[in-house]
Order: sequence, then structure tokens, then C-alpha cells
Amino acid sequence: MGCGHYYADITGDTAFAVDTNALKYGSGVLREIGDDAQVLGMTRIMLLTDRDLAKTAHVAVVCEALGAAGVDVVVYDEVAVEPTDTSFLRAAAAARDGRFNGYVAVGGGSVIDTAKAANLYATYPADLLEYVNPPIGRGKPVPGPLPPLIACPTTSGTGSECTPIAIFDYTAMHAKTGIVSRRMRPALGLVDPDVTSTLPSTVVACSGFDVLSHAVESFTALPYTKRAKPAQPRLRPASQGANPYSDVACTEAMRLTGEYIVRAVNDPKDTEARERMMFASTLAGIGFGNAGCHAPHGMSYSVSGLVKSFHASGYPEKPLVPHGMSVVLNSPAVFRFTAHACPERHLEAARLLGADASDVKNCSLEDAGRLLASAILRLMKATHIPNGLQGVGYAEADIPELAKGAFPQHRLLKNAPCEITLSDLEGIYRDALRYW
Amino acid sequence: MGCGHYYADITGDTAFAVDTNALKYGSGVLREIGDDAQVLGMTRIMLLTDRDLAKTAHVAVVCEALGAAGVDVVVYDEVAVEPTDTSFLRAAAAARDGRFNGYVAVGGGSVIDTAKAANLYATYPADLLEYVNPPIGRGKPVPGPLPPLIACPTTSGTGSECTPIAIFDYTAMHAKTGIVSRRMRPALGLVDPDVTSTLPSTVVACSGFDVLSHAVESFTALPYTKRAKPAQPRLRPASQGANPYSDVACTEAMRLTGEYIVRAVNDPKDTEARERMMFASTLAGIGFGNAGCHAPHGMSYSVSGLVKSFHASGYPEKPLVPHGMSVVLNSPAVFRFTAHACPERHLEAARLLGADASDVKNCSLEDAGRLLASAILRLMKATHIPNGLQGVGYAEADIPELAKGAFPQHRLLKNAPCEITLSDLEGIYRDALRYW
Repeated sequence: MGCGHYYADITGDTAFAVDTNALKYGSGVLREIGDDAQVLGMTRIMLLTDRDLAKTAHVAVVCEALGAAGVDVVVYDEVAVEPTDTSFLRAAAAARDGRFNGYVAVGGGSVIDTAKAANLYATYPADLLEYVNPPIGRGKPVPGPLPPLIACPTTSGTGSECTPIAIFDYTAMHAKTGIVSRRMRPALGLVDPDVTSTLPSTVVACSGFDVLSHAVESFTALPYTKRAKPAQPRLRPASQGANPYSDVACTEAMRLTGEYIVRAVNDPKDTEARERMMFASTLAGIGFGNAGCHAPHGMSYSVSGLVKSFHASGYPEKPLVPHGMSVVLNSPAVFRFTAHACPERHLEAARLLGADASDVKNCSLEDAGRLLASAILRLMKATHIPNGLQGVGYAEADIPELAKGAFPQHRLLKNAPCEITLSDLEGIYRDALRYW
Repeated sequence: MGCGHYYADITGDTAFAVDTNALKYGSGVLREIGDDAQVLGMTRIMLLTDRDLAKTAHVAVVCEALGAAGVDVVVYDEVAVEPTDTSFLRAAAAARDGRFNGYVAVGGGSVIDTAKAANLYATYPADLLEYVNPPIGRGKPVPGPLPPLIACPTTSGTGSECTPIAIFDYTAMHAKTGIVSRRMRPALGLVDPDVTSTLPSTVVACSGFDVLSHAVESFTALPYTKRAKPAQPRLRPASQGANPYSDVACTEAMRLTGEYIVRAVNDPKDTEARERMMFASTLAGIGFGNAGCHAPHGMSYSVSGLVKSFHASGYPEKPLVPHGMSVVLNSPAVFRFTAHACPERHLEAARLLGADASDVKNCSLEDAGRLLASAILRLMKATHIPNGLQGVGYAEADIPELAKGAFPQHRLLKNAPCEITLSDLEGIYRDALRYW
């Protein structure tokens, strides 16, 4: 892995936390959920999913296994893809009314995040903004433990099955924001790679680039040793910056993504590649759940929030830039901007993503950002991702609004390895308009 | 990492679990324990340690931080180095009488394991053998959750701060055995590398080789896909075999050990090397806690149990082969024996431990065991580990008894990548008598 000296210069905190939840990975683990629910003491469950997924074999398998174990299940299929404050609160109301002692989420990030929020607001009712990250929300700590949630991801991207984070659109501000609390971690993530066999290629691509960017962002994030020491240990944030533990998980996630993403996208029958991407997704979730993402994610929220008419195949029939796509469209431009802050790490990321060994060897540190961007762009081209932000409908004239939307993402932007001003954001978006 | 095809041939289980507990790593984290105890709801704590450690600054710092947080602390300093059934039960009796709602362990593996056992038997009183691994014990599952334990390792070896395992000497049989239950995992491991600065070199060496062997054993263990599928998912063992998650942790632990163990042992002032070994210890703990060790550990128990007069500097003044030493004295011989079952993994381990790159490249698979043994022996020589079992007082005539003592270690021996008979054990011990 190298790059150990990234933590040698301590100007801030001296410690980092390692926090993960239990996971099971493997073909068929969804069928084990009845036993898992019993072990967790669940007797009456709210199963959250969306309308499309509700008709799939995945939800049927889970319901059948829970039923066989004698667990009452109420299916809630009204989760919105790219959830909002309204859809969070609607799910929370259903959760409160149902008096459940456990939750199951079957879906992508939208579903798992909604389940986390429904569990939180049903257990500790409050105004929505109470627990939401500042500056949009008031960032109040979650008061106590929550009933257990079993998270069953159906895409290989979110990593939400092993993070303490729930993200939503705050419609009043046209901005994405989120809630972060260790209390919201699932009690168990059930990662069944069998679900990936029926995913459309675009979904594999978008969620795969979410994985890629989770891993590269965490690896190049501000080192934890440069984040200010918290006033109390309990206030150390989950987005604590790059650290030796997240490095271990992210390094392997980058290596797997570099090796398998193109095969996984282009050949639905390539079970090995799709399974490896599912595992990479979980590893990257462990990584960014302990380090935090930075600018590519922070900038993605206005890219998805300000969408005009773009639509991607395999996603709901409405204007929508899929989350992973809205992230990776910024990534090459961001890493060209941030590379000067930790060039060795950018170079190492390029190597792990499959950059040519002799290019890596001969690359000067000044060129590390360019090389990492090239490595990502090669994978984007090979998997038919649009050519920059213009490919999803943005133009020069949209840049001020995109930047204005991204700038309040403090949690994410402050986790970048260097300062990023509003004017820097404009420059990065401009660089991201067209790549080839 | 490679070696992914190790899991391609599924003849047994199709899934593996990932289970870890919360950890904090960094200089000064021991001073944060008051806040951590409050967050965990602890108000009256039993602090377990041993007589020597009780006089150190580590215990003083912990007591002071707990006191400042308003937590009642009762110090129990009667933990035995290399604990026995008797010392486990004595600690459990003190725990039961004290009516504690939390436990803190400050020490090496002996102390942390004793705290796990005291917590278990104080909470769910039972005959000692009730929860002990078969065939020696009855292997009953722990009935429910335990009060929280904060584990503070003072050596860089045990990994017990992040495992579900407690090991002890069952004196009636002169054999080591243990208890394994996810319920026994610490609620939090506080890994403060500052504790390593005052460790004697021999302790750094012995605990460092425990790390090395944890990592290599887990990496070369039987793949989880060849372990029989459990009758119920909840019965999947913690020693579940090598798997992609433990591989990630163990790979980095091997790399760190190969790079830093010699420096950490030979130069007490080399803070960087000692800190890296502390982190490697935790990573290897995460690895073997999710995979399980195999023959070197299984064979170590009779090496320590049948000790004659050997004594190592830095350890209590009694005949004692330190745990890590009793393990690594077997390791080269074991890996020469097991290499045929998964030569690529043995070769990769040799590479990670620092074997010469051209030797690795030119090595035939038939020679993988020899190359891995050489890589370990190089590190042993450079850190003054005795030259094989004869160096700690054993001779040819002891082999039958050593093998007889190791053979009942089912949990460990069955986790090896190939079958190991009683007569094989004799051959491996013979090979381990003298290495150079």
C-alpha cells in the first residue's frame, strides 16, 4: 500500500475509529434471513423496498424466508428512487404506525437509506432537520440505540449496508444532504451477489463507478491527522478522513474495480466479474464509512439535483442522472485539481485502477492527477459513460448554479485534501464538461 | 492480492460472515476511555489486569480517565499470564460478586481473554466446560448479550481486542482450549501504540511472530467454500476458513510484519516500526477472528503446555514458552507441510513477508513451502528467536507427547488446507526441532 507517511505529520487528531457492522457475503445469503431475524430478536418487521423491486424474486425470497421463520412482515414499497425529505417522512410515519421491532431493506442505496431514516424517526420522533448534517440541519446526535435493520443491497455500488449514512434530497433547497450516526448502521448487511445477474448494464456501470469514487475519494481524503481533534472523543465524526484502516479496504476495492468493472458492465453472464464488483462495493463501503468521501460526491448532488431532461436506461422513466454517474462525471476533474496535495496517493490510485505500469513508473508527481484522471476515463469510455457533464445536459452557463449547489456540502468538501473555494468548484465543473 | 480462484471450487459453504467490533487506534486513546465508558453506559467497572501491569502508567492513566468521568472502578490484578481454568473461574467469581455493568481489560491476550471469560461466566453462570469448544467442552452457545467490555491491548500481538475468542490452559488435561462466541467480542478495542515504547524486545518479537502466524495461517487456511455448510446459518463457526475479507486484512498484516518486525524488535526507539506492528496486530486479529488459525497455533499449545525449564527474558520468572514463540517455532515446518494444498498462497505469503522478488518469480509451486519457511526463518534469525523446538528444550523423545497434545485441537487442525494426521503431526514437530 505504501503512502504510510501520509499520517506522519500530525497537526490535528491523533486517533481514528474503526467502525463496521456485521455482514454476510455469498450466494444465497438472502435465503438465510429468517434465521438472522430470529437471532436479532425480530418478530414484526417492516420490509422496505420500491415498487419495481417489490415484484422481483429478491423480495419474494426474503418474505418467504421470514415467513418460514415465523416473523410477521409488512411490505412497504413506496420508497422513492433518490429519496426526498417527503419520502423519508412518509416511510417514518408508516414505521411509527406499524410498531415494528425490526426493519429489512431490500434495494439499492435509496431503499437502505430510507430504512435507516424510517427507523430513526419512528424511534426518536423529531423535526426532520433535527438529526440532519449541518449547515442544512441541526446535527443533533441520535439519542440512543435503534431497533435492528437488516440491509440487503440489490446493486453493487451503494455500500449503504455497511455505512452510518442516509442521504436524501432536501427539496426546499434543491440540495442533497444526509444524516450520519453510528446508531443508524445496519445490524447486519446481507450481501448476495446472485442479485447482480439480472442488473441492467447501465446500473452495473453507474453503481460500479460509485464504488470506484468511494474508494478513490476515501484514499485521497484529508488525512485524519490533519482534521481538528474533537472537543470530546464521542464527537469524532464518521467522516474522519483517510486513515490506515480505510486505506486497506479502499486499496483492494480500487484493485478489484480496475480489474473487473469493464467485464461486469459489458457481459451480464460474467458472474465472476459481477461477484467481485459486489464485494468491491462492500469493501468501499467499509472504507468510506470510516473515512468519508470528498469533492466528487459533494459536487454530484447538484449534478443530480439540477437535472434537466437526461434519462439513463435501466432507471425509472423520469429525468434523472443516476447517483454513480453524477459522481464519476466530476471525478477526473476533481483528482486533477486535488493531486498536488498528495500526488503519491493519486499515483497509487492510478496504478490500482489499471494504469500502465511503465506510465506509473515514469510519471512525475506533477503529472499524478493527469494519470489518475486518464485511468478513470479509460474505464468510463469502455463502459459507455457520457463524455462529461455536457453528456447529461449541462453547459457553461450552468456552472455558477452547479457550484452554488455544491458549496454548502461542508462535510464532504472539508474532507478533500486541499481547500476548495466556490471559484475552484466552478473551475472543476468547467473542466468536467467534456473529457474527450 | 490475487489468489481469487481459491474460492472458485465450491464443495461446502457458499457464504462467509464478516464480524468485527468497534476499535479506536492512535496515540493517547487510552486517555479517552472515560468518554467511551460513558457512551457505553458503564457506571461500575471491573478493570482486569495483572500484577506487573497494575503498577504501570497504562493502568494509572485508564483509572484516572475513568474516575474523571465519574465511573466506579474496581481493579482486579490477579489475572494469570497464560490463564487456566482456575484463574478464569477466580476472575468470574470476582466479577459476579462485584455486580459490574461493564469491564475493562488492560493487558495482553491473557488479560483480555480472562476479561471475556469473567464477563461470560458472571453473566450466565455455568459449569466451566459448558461454553468451551468441543471436544474438550460442550460448546453450548452463549445464551444472550453480555455487558460491554473495553479491551486495551498492551502488547502488539494478541489481536484479542477484536476477536470473539478466549484461550486458557485446561489443567486437568494439560491442554490449551478456548471459548469462541461472537457475544464475547469487546464492545470496543482501544489500541494505543504508545504502550509499545516500553515493551522488552523479546515481548515485541514473540508477540510480533504471533501476528505473523495469525496472518499467514488465516491466509492459508482451508477456504470457506470447502467447509461444510452449517445446519443453521447461526451455527456458522467464527473459524470459518480463509475468505476474501480476512485475506484483505491478513495481506496487509503480512506486508507490515515483513517490513517492520526486525526494526521493531531491535530498536526500541523506532516508534514508527513499533506503531506499525501494533496496527498489524489489530489487522491480523480482524483476519483470524474471521477466518481462524490452523496448525501452528494448534501445535503451539503442547509446546507451551509441556514446557520444561525454558524461560524468556521479559516474561514472568517461571518456566514458560511465550505464546508467540510457541507458535512460530512450528510455523516454518507446518508451511512446508501444507504448501502442496495451496502453493500460490504460500508463495504470495513469502512475497509479502519480504522474500526476494526474483526468488519468488523463479520459484516453482513445488518449492513454495520452502520459500515461505525461508522468509519466516530469516525474520526469526534477525530477531533472536530460538533455533527450533530444541532451542526451548525439546528433543526427539518428546515428539509423541507433543503430537498427542496437539491432536485434540480439532477447531484448529480442521482449518488447515489439508488433512493432518497424528503421524503427520509427529513429522512436522520433528522437522521443527532444528532449523539452521
